[in-house]
Amino acid sequence: MKTGRFIGVGLGPGDPDLMTVRAARLIGQAKVIAYPSLPGTESFAHQIAAPYISDNTHEIVLEIPMTTARGPAQAAYDFGAARIAEALDLGEDVVMLCEGDPFFYGSFMYLHARLAEHYSIDVVPGVTSVSAAAARAQLPLVARNEAFSVIPAPLPDDTIRKRMEASDSFAILKVGRHLGRIRALLVSLGLADRAHYVERATLENERILPLPEAPDPAPYFSLILVTKGADPWLKTQS
Amino acid sequence: MKTGRFIGVGLGPGDPDLMTVRAARLIGQAKVIAYPSLPGTESFAHQIAAPYISDNTHEIVLEIPMTTARGPAQAAYDFGAARIAEALDLGEDVVMLCEGDPFFYGSFMYLHARLAEHYSIDVVPGVTSVSAAAARAQLPLVARNEAFSVIPAPLPDDTIRKRMEASDSFAILKVGRHLGRIRALLVSLGLADRAHYVERATLENERILPLPEAPDPAPYFSLILVTKGADPWLKTQS
Repeated sequence: MKTGRFIGVGLGPGDPDLMTVRAARLIGQAKVIAYPSLPGTESFAHQIAAPYISDNTHEIVLEIPMTTARGPAQAAYDFGAARIAEALDLGEDVVMLCEGDPFFYGSFMYLHARLAEHYSIDVVPGVTSVSAAAARAQLPLVARNEAFSVIPAPLPDDTIRKRMEASDSFAILKVGRHLGRIRALLVSLGLADRAHYVERATLENERILPLPEAPDPAPYFSLILVTKGADPWLKTQS
Repeated sequence: MKTGRFIGVGLGPGDPDLMTVRAARLIGQAKVIAYPSLPGTESFAHQIAAPYISDNTHEIVLEIPMTTARGPAQAAYDFGAARIAEALDLGEDVVMLCEGDPFFYGSFMYLHARLAEHYSIDVVPGVTSVSAAAARAQLPLVARNEAFSVIPAPLPDDTIRKRMEASDSFAILKVGRHLGRIRALLVSLGLADRAHYVERATLENERILPLPEAPDPAPYFSLILVTKGADPWLKTQS
């Protein structure tokens, strides 16, 4: 029997209207979808995709524990990959719902690593939370030959500071309980007044705040955007 | 009279199927669209959006000369902004077609800078060429606490080298005639075999090649993706 395709579909930042035309169509036509979920909570990926999911679609829920210990998450991905492989072996395509973009900090990557050797895989890129936050905050990110960085907040201060210094613009992701530390770093570099805090971009309870007003700790789905200075080309000569 | 809204709409990387549901709808409903074009060539933005543009939509073509001299491009953006303002003053919304994501190296930023003070602006984020290239090359970009950089190839060697060293993964944009120089830098850092060349991602004439086989000079719509090493979490324990 011909095995099915495993299709990682980027859902974009949260507003269902911001997934791609292809993503919406693939989800609507899917007989089998898979998605990650924290045990005991509603899946954010499923929430975004819900308006497009057909009745009678079979759902494979991958319960992934939120932990920094490697064993439990590894085991969950192994188990999830095996369940997806079962459906693929039956000849069914499996559409995996991925928040944002599948290859940009997504759990899809862990399943891709486990299934790519034996199955055909497609990846549909999505709008990242970084692009969405910039759009909502109306903050041009990079122009011409400016360099951009994406920096996870849990990294050590020294690493973060060097990357902040080396970039024209940057996004700090996974802010959460690191907000105070990141704020202190930005203040020490004289960048605090160039920083914008964006929480749940494009969702109903979105908040966009100047850095001093940001909540500490911040929720998980929050990021900080910093643009060091407008490229002079952005301005008119007149 | 109430002035219209200026709406910057990200079109994604090139395949019309990869624009967002909202972008497709806004373009289809637009009475007035605007888009950049190199003088004498077909507009890439218009090409991407074509399947969604309605008959009788009024089109404002912004002819932007491809030049590193500031004067002519500045003047073209001033002139384009004035034409868009005219339509907005007549109460019409104007949908501006933006390749990729509007705030990620897009010409929309120059119009935003000229119009934001006096008009209501909306920005619809789009899938970047970076996400699209990673999806097509099936290359997971960043996981967990990895840092990512976007580095324009025209920057000086020293600047590029430092940014390459400081990142776990990175994309080199605007490769073009800089391909040989970028390749030499990657070889000197021992990263050449981790580099993937992606040309016109998601378009019909897309090419994905190992770096040694990349054409020199490369076309403008090409980029290089480098991931230094898979996060060990990507692998199964068994």
